[in-house]
Amino acid sequence: MPPTIAPPHPFDTATALTAREPGVLLGRTTAAYANMVGPFGGITAATLLRAVLDHPERIGDPVALTVNYAAPIADGEFEVRARPARTNRSTQHWTLKLGRDGEVSTTATAVFGVRKPGWSDAERTAPDVPPAESLPVQQFPEAIAWIHNYEMRFAEGGPEGMATGEPANSRTAVWVRDVPHRPLDFPALASLADIFLPRIMMRLGRMVPAGTVSLTVHFHADAEILAAQGDRPVLGVARASHFGGGYFDQSAELWGADGTLLATSHQMVYFKA
Amino acid sequence: MPPTIAPPHPFDTATALTAREPGVLLGRTTAAYANMVGPFGGITAATLLRAVLDHPERIGDPVALTVNYAAPIADGEFEVRARPARTNRSTQHWTLKLGRDGEVSTTATAVFGVRKPGWSDAERTAPDVPPAESLPVQQFPEAIAWIHNYEMRFAEGGPEGMATGEPANSRTAVWVRDVPHRPLDFPALASLADIFLPRIMMRLGRMVPAGTVSLTVHFHADAEILAAQGDRPVLGVARASHFGGGYFDQSAELWGADGTLLATSHQMVYFKA
Repeated sequence: MPPTIAPPHPFDTATALTAREPGVLLGRTTAAYANMVGPFGGITAATLLRAVLDHPERIGDPVALTVNYAAPIADGEFEVRARPARTNRSTQHWTLKLGRDGEVSTTATAVFGVRKPGWSDAERTAPDVPPAESLPVQQFPEAIAWIHNYEMRFAEGGPEGMATGEPANSRTAVWVRDVPHRPLDFPALASLADIFLPRIMMRLGRMVPAGTVSLTVHFHADAEILAAQGDRPVLGVARASHFGGGYFDQSAELWGADGTLLATSHQMVYFKA
Repeated sequence: MPPTIAPPHPFDTATALTAREPGVLLGRTTAAYANMVGPFGGITAATLLRAVLDHPERIGDPVALTVNYAAPIADGEFEVRARPARTNRSTQHWTLKLGRDGEVSTTATAVFGVRKPGWSDAERTAPDVPPAESLPVQQFPEAIAWIHNYEMRFAEGGPEGMATGEPANSRTAVWVRDVPHRPLDFPALASLADIFLPRIMMRLGRMVPAGTVSLTVHFHADAEILAAQGDRPVLGVARASHFGGGYFDQSAELWGADGTLLATSHQMVYFKA
């Protein structure tokens, strides 16, 4: 029997914001989505996206989101400032800041757009992997809190790759969804873009200091496509292209259960090795 | 005989900024880099990056740059505001705005970092294409001003693909460099990330309304690698992965003459078709 949902879902608690004054929202870190230092980057991206989605002046759906992780977010309350820098007829550009006591820990920009029907096509197709239900659910160490909010079934490049040490490439393909199961929405999709282990650890076969400095999510799904996805597993595929000078890139695709490309993401990650 | 460089290079004129007051810089559009409506997006990205590079408080080299094109930039003067939102020991996070008379036309964020030696590797290699000098220099219509600042030699997916109509994919591989020749630097590299024709036009085989709404550049080269590149051609490879709902993505790799990955870029583009 699947886990049941007793509202509010931990994801909604972790990304909840309340208005403090016009343009300033209050959020609070939750233990459920804690990472080694500060919260899981995905939940921060989701919280910033939610700040726009909940804003009374918002138009359209997310098209692009860039989140820059400038410093760890301390446990407890934080402030989010979301401002529409420019509103056009069918697009809207947002600038965002997250911090506390005048210190900025995260900056972000978002582009929203009114999606319109028109020519569509995909040049890439989802990789051919075994169906989610045929793969075992991965068990993770207790120490990493946030990861227990996700059910992951690895088709390729799972954590056992680290144990065997230094694979030739950093590619991972994993079926993933929220635990407890939860219908996919834009904040949850943004968060999924960041669930992948830093690729440097896959390559080196060991834990090394690493942290995302900038994450960009490009949204291909509209609200209707997300609704059709429901709470079924999403296929996430991630890989790096270049490591050097203390940084590497990491790109990911998030595919819906029926093979639709929901989002692509690209990040730059600091590492020490 | 290659074109000679009589300083200042048109690229440097187009990206030049002068201080108006602390934190506010003045720039000016130039006819040489004009696009259909407003300036070429690459030159705007380069100008914003230059605002940080020239800032007295700047530390390190560019790691990530996201530029959001909110509205066309009118011909003439514009203001750039660049602010270090957070400065750490070896990373620095910038927020930027470009506009005039209180209207924002472009927002941006940049992450700079002090590059450190360490483990390095590439998971991707440059595509196998004929050397630049074996390919003809592409001729372009007079009407598109900015493109005449680039020498392009197409190995795959050139503009003739449009004439023949509707290829199966949008991939382009092109050797490109500034005209007159100019040693590569970070602003010029950022600009190169945007030289590719919108992929929708490659796919449909005709011109359609299209414009980048968000461009992210991830820098893999440090200053030393750029110096080694000099003014030799860069191999640019671009493709889309998904078109739909009035937007598509476009990813590009910029490879150095010796096969080093200098930068990757990812954009979301509005289109009407």
